[in-house]
Parts: sequence; structure tokens; C-alpha cells
Amino acid sequence: MKIKKKSGIIVEFDNTKLIASLINSGASITVAKRILNEIQPQLYNGITSKKVYALAFQKLKSVSHANAARYSLKNGIFALGPAGFYFEKFIARIFEVQGYDVITNLFLEGKCVSHELDVLVKKDNHVSMVECKFHSSQDAKTDVKVPMYILSRFNDLNKKSYTIFKKEEQITNCWLVTNSKFTSEAIKFAECSGLKLLSWDHPFQNGIKNIVNHYNIYPITCLTTLTAAEKELLLLQDMLTVYDLMHFEDSFEKLKLSENRMKRIKEECNQLLNR
Amino acid sequence: MKIKKKSGIIVEFDNTKLIASLINSGASITVAKRILNEIQPQLYNGITSKKVYALAFQKLKSVSHANAARYSLKNGIFALGPAGFYFEKFIARIFEVQGYDVITNLFLEGKCVSHELDVLVKKDNHVSMVECKFHSSQDAKTDVKVPMYILSRFNDLNKKSYTIFKKEEQITNCWLVTNSKFTSEAIKFAECSGLKLLSWDHPFQNGIKNIVNHYNIYPITCLTTLTAAEKELLLLQDMLTVYDLMHFEDSFEKLKLSENRMKRIKEECNQLLNR
Repeated sequence: MKIKKKSGIIVEFDNTKLIASLINSGASITVAKRILNEIQPQLYNGITSKKVYALAFQKLKSVSHANAARYSLKNGIFALGPAGFYFEKFIARIFEVQGYDVITNLFLEGKCVSHELDVLVKKDNHVSMVECKFHSSQDAKTDVKVPMYILSRFNDLNKKSYTIFKKEEQITNCWLVTNSKFTSEAIKFAECSGLKLLSWDHPFQNGIKNIVNHYNIYPITCLTTLTAAEKELLLLQDMLTVYDLMHFEDSFEKLKLSENRMKRIKEECNQLLNR
Repeated sequence: MKIKKKSGIIVEFDNTKLIASLINSGASITVAKRILNEIQPQLYNGITSKKVYALAFQKLKSVSHANAARYSLKNGIFALGPAGFYFEKFIARIFEVQGYDVITNLFLEGKCVSHELDVLVKKDNHVSMVECKFHSSQDAKTDVKVPMYILSRFNDLNKKSYTIFKKEEQITNCWLVTNSKFTSEAIKFAECSGLKLLSWDHPFQNGIKNIVNHYNIYPITCLTTLTAAEKELLLLQDMLTVYDLMHFEDSFEKLKLSENRMKRIKEECNQLLNR
């Protein structure tokens, strides 16, 4: 059977990829195989990969909300938009769980012009600037112009010293982070110029999806038991991650939930955090 | 009387500015004053500056097509779009009339990635790259990110030598050209970083409008005696400027014009070239 990928390319449907993706979300191999069997009658030649994903997601949700939340992580990160604001805060958290000190939204005066910096991080006495590029469309790619202008920003800043984390020091590294993908030219230019890149699946096995799964730092936007309006209310209170939600219990208050819903939401959160 | 500028700002209507602009297009002071008198009854409080300009243009056209063509030069350059292709060719011509050797659309391999360069120019043994940024909207401005990524392109290219104009040499300068305006931050960054800028009115008294008027290098798109379809047909044949049009007479052939129209068009062209 043939399926149509997001890029429009038609490829042979690969059972094992779907099973791997389900297992990666926490489903057992038995459950993954059962889901595949259950959706099989609904598949047809030329179906889009997005539709296959949606069918599997529906089934997975009926088995375990937490597994479905993991499965929808990518959409959950897109749901931090449409502005880049919450994505920047989420990326700051991603560095924080890896042992960095972090500061967000800082204005610094460069050699030529002043800059608003999304995130600044420090670890092992090295200060890095982290520039975030949020795309609301799943198809958008970060092209070579972005690392090119970010490199000029970095070069405009790295000649001077700033007091960012208590003592005066220089910015020695620069990260470029996106929720979508980089073009191959963007990767080539960034690597050749000494910029560090982070995207959904880059670097290989160390992209955002890997870090999130490794540190269990799920954005609340991937929870399947909350409505979009409830998520928005939580984000407004700076409740960005499932971990935050479970550790600052006051945050639930504004949602005015029934005991029954509260129980289901906490169950999904706990399953996500204690895999 | 108040008028509304393109930016939305309301200002007092300034007679002298309109007169200066008409004189600048080749009208005598007597004609300019007469036009002002003639449009006066049609002006009203809160009229847009665009409407005032259009009324004056109509009157000017009835006096002299060539003066009207000069008056509509800015629109004529916008009419080279919507793609940036003809604008790049026109900018190459702008350098050519100033004594530069020029080459357009060249691929060069930089230190990190390969680049498609719009225009390369050479004068006094210095090779410069010229990057063109065409905007189809009159309100669009070229912001600071553009000189930032252009600087990175330049730095990726200026370490190597290339055989562009016969002998092997390095690119030592970089121009950024736009048909619209630069933001103040873009100008600040470019000047501080050693990039040269050219826009409609930048550098002051040496912008595109000044060069065009000084060298009489009018794009055919500002002629008032040709239709849009006829202009398109001429551009397709690489007839970019009024000078070209008058020096390669074959170019008129495809237009299949009546003797009478041909006479009027040539009249406008001659008036533009022999001011």
C-alpha cells in the first residue's frame, strides 16, 4: 500500500515505522501491534501519512492518555504558538533541565546596534546566546538566511563584555533553535561557522524530541485531557510544563475543574512524568 | 489645509514641496505654479498625499509626457517587479553608466556554502558584490536582518579569489540595494559594518532617484505613452531603459505601433534623454 507524505512524495507504507513511533510514545509492542491491526481496515492506497498518524493517535488515546500525549509532542510544541513567546520560554526550560543557568528577553548593546536576545544560558563558565525561530506551519523550514543573520548578531555581541550572570563576561557561543526543520544549506552554513543548532530532530538523536523524552519535560500543550482554552489559561500563568503543573498545585485552581476531571488530568501528568 | 501622508500621519499641506517636486521633474516654475493653481479646487482637508500626487501627475502629463515620466520614476521602478529580476538588471545598468564593468547572476562557492549573486561590479581594480532587495509594496522597508545576512554572505566570499572579470581577484566591497527604504537600524548596522547602501533616496542626494536623473537612465516602465503590456514585451527583450529603446530601433518592431503612436513615444523618449 502506498501513502502520501507531507512533502507530497508517495512512498510504500512501512508498518515498522508506525510501530516504532508508537513504542517510542510508551506503548508496549503488543499494544502497538494491536493498534496497527485495528486501524488497518481504515487504510487505503494514497492515504496521507497525517491521516495514518491521526487514526493511530485516536486508538492510542483510548489505551493511554499519556502515551497519546507523547505521540503528539510535536503538535504540542507547535501549539505553544502562534507567537514565539512561549516557545522561547520552553527552550529556556530545556536548557535549564540540562544544568544551565538561564535568562530570557534581555536587551544588549552590540558593537553596531542593540539586540533583543531571546535566551541567554551559562554552564561551565561559558555564556551562550540562544536565538529561537518559531514557525507556526509544520511545513516551514528555517533557511540559510537565518543562521547568516544570527551569525552577524553574534559577531556584533561577542567582542564586548556584559554583566548577565552576576560577573562581567563575554558571550562565547551561539545557538539557533527552531521547532521545525533546518534546510540542508542552513545546517552546512551553521556548522561551518561554529553556530550550534537544535531543532525537532537535529542533532540526530539529540534533538528537541530526544531531550524532552529524556528529561520528561513535556509542554502542557501536549496533554490530551485539557482543552485549548484551559491550556491558554495555564500558559498565561507561566505554567509551561507538565512538571510545573504538578509541582505548583495552585495553578489548577483557576481552571475550576470537577474532581473527576482533575483526577484524569493528574493521572495523565503522572504517567508522563513517571515512565 | 491638512493632508494625510502614506504613513497615516496628518500634516499641514506644503505648497513648496509640490512645486519643488514638479520642477525636479523638468517642469518650469511657471508650469509648476499653474498646475498647483489648477488642482487647488480639487484639494480638501484630509486628502491623502497620494491623491494630491495623482492630481498633479494628470495635469503634468497634459503639459509634457516626459515631465510626467520623471515625476512617476518611483512608480516606474516598482513596475519593474513583482519579481526582483528586472530590478537587478536595472541596478546593473546604474553601475554601468557610472563606469563600472558589470556581470549579473553568478554562482560562486564560498568558504561554507555556495551563493547566487545578483550583480558583480568592478571599477579601479576593486570587485564588489551588489545584492538587490526588491519590494513590491511601497510601504515595505528593508530591515536590519537583511544587511546582517548579506554581511555573512560577503564574509563567506571575501576570503577566496575568483575569476570573475578575466583575472583572478578577491571581492573587496559589498553593496546592498533596495527600491524602497532601509530602516534606521539597517542603516546603522550597515554603515558600522562597512556595507555600502543604495536606496531610492539613500545616500542623501546620491540615491537611485539622483543617479537616474543625473545619467538620464530612465526605466521604460516610467514612460507614460506605452501600455503595461507593451512595457512587458520590451522587458522580455531586455529593453530595460529608455536609452536602450532609442538606440536599438529593432526593439519597437514587435510592438506593431501606428506611425502616430510611434511618433508620440519617441517624442517622450527624446524629451527624457535630452533634458
